[in-house]
Amino acid sequence: MRRSEKGGVPMDANERAEFVSLFPVWDHLSPPEQEETIRQARVVHYEDGRRIHQGGDECLGLLLLRKGGVRVYMLSEDGREITLYRLDQGSACILTASCVLSTITFDVHVDAEGETEAYLLDAPYWAELCRQNIYVECLSYRLATERFSEVMWAMQQILFMSLDRRLAVFLSDELVRGGGDTIHLTHEQVARYMGSAREAVSRMLKYFSSEGIVELSRGGIHIKDKKKLRALAAH
Amino acid sequence: MRRSEKGGVPMDANERAEFVSLFPVWDHLSPPEQEETIRQARVVHYEDGRRIHQGGDECLGLLLLRKGGVRVYMLSEDGREITLYRLDQGSACILTASCVLSTITFDVHVDAEGETEAYLLDAPYWAELCRQNIYVECLSYRLATERFSEVMWAMQQILFMSLDRRLAVFLSDELVRGGGDTIHLTHEQVARYMGSAREAVSRMLKYFSSEGIVELSRGGIHIKDKKKLRALAAH
Repeated sequence: MRRSEKGGVPMDANERAEFVSLFPVWDHLSPPEQEETIRQARVVHYEDGRRIHQGGDECLGLLLLRKGGVRVYMLSEDGREITLYRLDQGSACILTASCVLSTITFDVHVDAEGETEAYLLDAPYWAELCRQNIYVECLSYRLATERFSEVMWAMQQILFMSLDRRLAVFLSDELVRGGGDTIHLTHEQVARYMGSAREAVSRMLKYFSSEGIVELSRGGIHIKDKKKLRALAAH
Repeated sequence: MRRSEKGGVPMDANERAEFVSLFPVWDHLSPPEQEETIRQARVVHYEDGRRIHQGGDECLGLLLLRKGGVRVYMLSEDGREITLYRLDQGSACILTASCVLSTITFDVHVDAEGETEAYLLDAPYWAELCRQNIYVECLSYRLATERFSEVMWAMQQILFMSLDRRLAVFLSDELVRGGGDTIHLTHEQVARYMGSAREAVSRMLKYFSSEGIVELSRGGIHIKDKKKLRALAAH
């Protein structure tokens, strides 16, 4: 899975430049910290769908995503999954280094979505860097706080259910009315017909899109997964 | 509501000492920052149940709780509440200063529980201090990350636990908080704090009563069999 183990193949100049661009507080590292960080970084590969991190596991470390993405979710004892958020290329995944932050006391699962490549700074090194550089420690907490916001949004959708269900019902009804697979309405129109705020509808449509339920284009809303849509509407 | 407005009555020596003990990174402030922070701090009072902060509001600032406590919750459009966590005396409430952290993009409500007193550093001053002192910025994100953990715990209860178990956990926690054998809450309140429907909670309480776990009266919920309750909470 890992191309270069610690102390293995060093990064080439391009990788080095990319790594630096992905590392959010690079300029706050001292030159020796920069050197050591470059030395510690490893390139890791994950196939689509591969489990990267799981609750209760010893933790991996900080991932800087250079390709692909990850899905972060909670898993219940009986196997139900709740997607909390997704991270794309260019993002830093801190919850794979949750053990470094003593204030994080929950477990999540992280899976690769698509062929995924990342720079990994392993947990012991990340912990050391957090201890010695307040900007790195602050970065860790700031990243965690960003994820907190994403989780809160997901939770509101899940717990209060109104908008996603209403939108699913609306789209299902429109499908029946129109007869095809595509609904030729703008987000503005959908929002107006539903009596909701356009931003909220747009955001929810984006969420539907990330879940593979719809595909958004200039021409309208194409329904990709009718079964999933109906399940959402009916639930 | 506020005893001393900015530039009003200065803190006395006891209050000053208490304030310093409640401020988590005091030793990382420069002497001029310490002086200014003392000068900016105000004592605020809230009656039991009073709304301290609400979503969409301009934000208040950092609260350092010296007495009483707060309940932090989400509110749906149709008025359902989901309790996210509670903070007691000695804690710092950062979500009342959420506007200071650009990474926090969600809204919560904060109510006083019991007669509550706090030191307030208002949002503009807190923002300034975050900008000029990395330890203060880091503290803000660290506090937010702690709350993230509490929210994740609450979410797991809500999303994954059956109602009987959630109710048992809730009643057990309330017993510990209150200290006695009786929980002085109406079914309505229990349902609100748990983020559940009142009918469902009432039905479950009746079931608990028929099982000899609780006794229901006008005054509240009397726990008859703590062992059984704990077993249910733990199962």
